[in-house]
Amino acid sequence: MNSKVFRLSKLFLKRNHHLCISRNSLCNISTSMERVFSGIQPTGTLHLGNYFGALKKWVELQETCGSVLYSIVDLHSITLPQDPKILHRNILEVTACLLACGINPQKSILFQQSKVSQHAELAWVLGCMTTMARLGHLPQFKEKSASVKDIPLGIFVYPVLQSADILVYKATKVPVGEDQLQHLQLAQHLAKLFNSKYGKLFPHPKALINDDCTARLRSLRDPTKKMSKSEPDPKSRIDLTDSEEVILEKVKKAVTDFESAVTWDPKNRPGVSNLIAIHCGMTGKTPEEIVQDAQGLDTGKYKLVVADAINKVLQPIREETMRLLKDPPFLEQILEDGSMKASSIAEDTWESVRKLVGLSS
Amino acid sequence: MNSKVFRLSKLFLKRNHHLCISRNSLCNISTSMERVFSGIQPTGTLHLGNYFGALKKWVELQETCGSVLYSIVDLHSITLPQDPKILHRNILEVTACLLACGINPQKSILFQQSKVSQHAELAWVLGCMTTMARLGHLPQFKEKSASVKDIPLGIFVYPVLQSADILVYKATKVPVGEDQLQHLQLAQHLAKLFNSKYGKLFPHPKALINDDCTARLRSLRDPTKKMSKSEPDPKSRIDLTDSEEVILEKVKKAVTDFESAVTWDPKNRPGVSNLIAIHCGMTGKTPEEIVQDAQGLDTGKYKLVVADAINKVLQPIREETMRLLKDPPFLEQILEDGSMKASSIAEDTWESVRKLVGLSS
Repeated sequence: MNSKVFRLSKLFLKRNHHLCISRNSLCNISTSMERVFSGIQPTGTLHLGNYFGALKKWVELQETCGSVLYSIVDLHSITLPQDPKILHRNILEVTACLLACGINPQKSILFQQSKVSQHAELAWVLGCMTTMARLGHLPQFKEKSASVKDIPLGIFVYPVLQSADILVYKATKVPVGEDQLQHLQLAQHLAKLFNSKYGKLFPHPKALINDDCTARLRSLRDPTKKMSKSEPDPKSRIDLTDSEEVILEKVKKAVTDFESAVTWDPKNRPGVSNLIAIHCGMTGKTPEEIVQDAQGLDTGKYKLVVADAINKVLQPIREETMRLLKDPPFLEQILEDGSMKASSIAEDTWESVRKLVGLSS
Repeated sequence: MNSKVFRLSKLFLKRNHHLCISRNSLCNISTSMERVFSGIQPTGTLHLGNYFGALKKWVELQETCGSVLYSIVDLHSITLPQDPKILHRNILEVTACLLACGINPQKSILFQQSKVSQHAELAWVLGCMTTMARLGHLPQFKEKSASVKDIPLGIFVYPVLQSADILVYKATKVPVGEDQLQHLQLAQHLAKLFNSKYGKLFPHPKALINDDCTARLRSLRDPTKKMSKSEPDPKSRIDLTDSEEVILEKVKKAVTDFESAVTWDPKNRPGVSNLIAIHCGMTGKTPEEIVQDAQGLDTGKYKLVVADAINKVLQPIREETMRLLKDPPFLEQILEDGSMKASSIAEDTWESVRKLVGLSS
C-alpha cells in the first residue's frame, strides 16, 4: 500500500467511525444473530503481519461468537496470475497454518471459497447493481492498476466478490484491515441497495478493526512500509514457519537507526518501535512495559530478546504446521467439511436472492 | 443496434469468415463431438425477429445435432433493471414460446441459466483472464454505455458471462446474430488462452450465422432499424402471440413507400422488402417467387396476403403458448429437468477447470 492510499484510509477511518466497532467491543458479540466472516488469500506462508492483523483476532472471535466463518479466498488469489501447482499447495499451507494458530473447525467454519458456488453467483447479482464509476474510484484499484500495463478485469471487480463473500452469509461483523474499509463500505452499500430494491434480506455488515500497536507491523528492511508478502526481500518479514535460526537472523538484520536506546516512538523511530510492537504482540505487554523491561539494553542486545520472544510463540505454530502439512488428505477433508457447512448457509441466502430478484418463484 | 455498430459487425463478418460456418453446412453437424449452445433473454414475449433470427434455426438444429443446449439467460437480463414479478413471468413465457415453436425437451436441453451455478463460477475464472481494455473496445459496450449516465458493471462484463455460457458446455457451434460475433470472438480468445495457459480443455466454438433474407427483419414502423423488443412502439414488431386481428392491423400500418408495385429491393425499398422477407420466412419461398406470385397486387392488397401468411404460421404457436401458460408448474418442471441435465455437463467442466487452475488437486 503506498503512502497516499494509507493516508486516505486513515482519513476514511476517522470520518467514518460509525462504520466500525472498536476492538474493545469484541467481547460484546454473543447474541445468536451475530455472524463473523473474514477471508484470507492463499498466497503462500503467512507472516507475523497476518498473524497480528487477522489470525490472532480470528481465534479470539471463535471463542466469543456463536457463528464464525473463515474462508480461504482462492477465487481472489487468481485475480493475478498464479502457478496452479503452487496455488494448490498454498491452499493447503494456509489451512495448516490457520489450524496451527488455533482455528478450531469445531468452533469456526473454515472453508475454501471456490467450493461454495454461491460466492460467484451472488457476485454476479451484486455486480449488476454496482456502477463502474464506484469501482473505479476505489483506492486499491487505483493503486493496483497503476503498476499494470493491461489491467485484468479481476482487479477491478474483486471488491464485488468480497461483498458477496460477506453478504452470502449475512455476516454482521467483518474483521478487516484498515486498507479494506472502503471495500466493506461497498458491501454495506450493496446490502442497503438490495434491501431497498428487492426487500429486506441482508443485515448491515460492520467492520471489526484491530487498532492496537500490532495492527500495522512494518517491514523489517524498511519500516516506512507495511510488512507484506508482496515485498520481494523475504528478510522484510517473519513467516510463521521460520526456524529459530532464521528468526534470529532476520531480527538481527532488522533496520533500526543510529540511536542505541530502546524507546517507543513509532513516528520518529519506526524501526525499533516496530520491534517493540512485535514484542508486545508476543507477550501481551504494553509498549511502556516493554521499554521498562529493556532498560540498559542497546538495540543490538534487545533484538536477541525480541527474537527469543517471537520464537517462543512461533515454535508450537511452526511444529504443528509442519506436522499437518504431512497429511494433505486430512487438510482437504477439513476444507471439504467446512465448505459443506458454509454451503448450507449460502444456499439459503441464494434461494432468497433468487426469489426476491425474480429468478425463481 | 446503431448503424455504425452494424457496419462494424458486417465488416467484422467479412474479414473473419473463418470464424463462422454458413447455414449450408448446418446439415453436416452430426458427429458426437459437436455440441450446440445458444441463449435467449427472458425479456417478454418473443417476436418475429427472434423467430427467424434464432428459434427456427434452433428447432432445425435439434433434429440434426446430437447434443443441443438452449438457455433462458436470466442472469443476462438483470444487467439492466428488471421488475422481479415481470422477470419471473417472462421466464415462463419464453419457455412456453420456445416449446410452442417446436423446441422438444427430449431432443434439446432447455434450461434456465441461473439454475446452473457453473455459469457464474466459470465467468469469474474467465474474467480474471480478461483485460478491461478488451471489454471496453467491444462495440456493444460502447453502444449500450453511451446512453447510460452511470454505467452498471453488468453491461461491461456480460460478454465474459456469455463466454462462460458457451465454454462451460464445451460447445462447438453457437448460433448467433451478427451483432454478437465480437462476443463470440471473446469466447474463442478465452478458450484458446485458457488452453495454452492451463492445458487443453475447451474446443473452438464456431459461429452459426443465419445469412438468408430473414436474418435481419426490420421494424415495421421504421425499416431502417432492426425489429427489436427495445423499440417502444409495439406496432414496430409482430409478437409470436399476437392475435389474427393484431397481426393484420400491424401489417396494414407497416411503413412502405410511395410506389405501389411489389418488388424486392432491400436497399432502396426496405419497407416492402421487409414484408417480402417475412413472407419468405413464412412460406419457404424465395423473394423472386414471392414477387412473381404478387404480380398485379399493389402493396395495400399484398399486405393482406402477408398478414394471412403470418397468421397461418403463428396461429398454432400462439394457441400452444397460451395453453402452456395455463400450467406454470409444468413449465417450471421443464426448466428444472433441463437444468439438471445441463448441470451434469457443467459440473464436469468446472471440476476440470478447478484442477487445471490449481483450485483443487
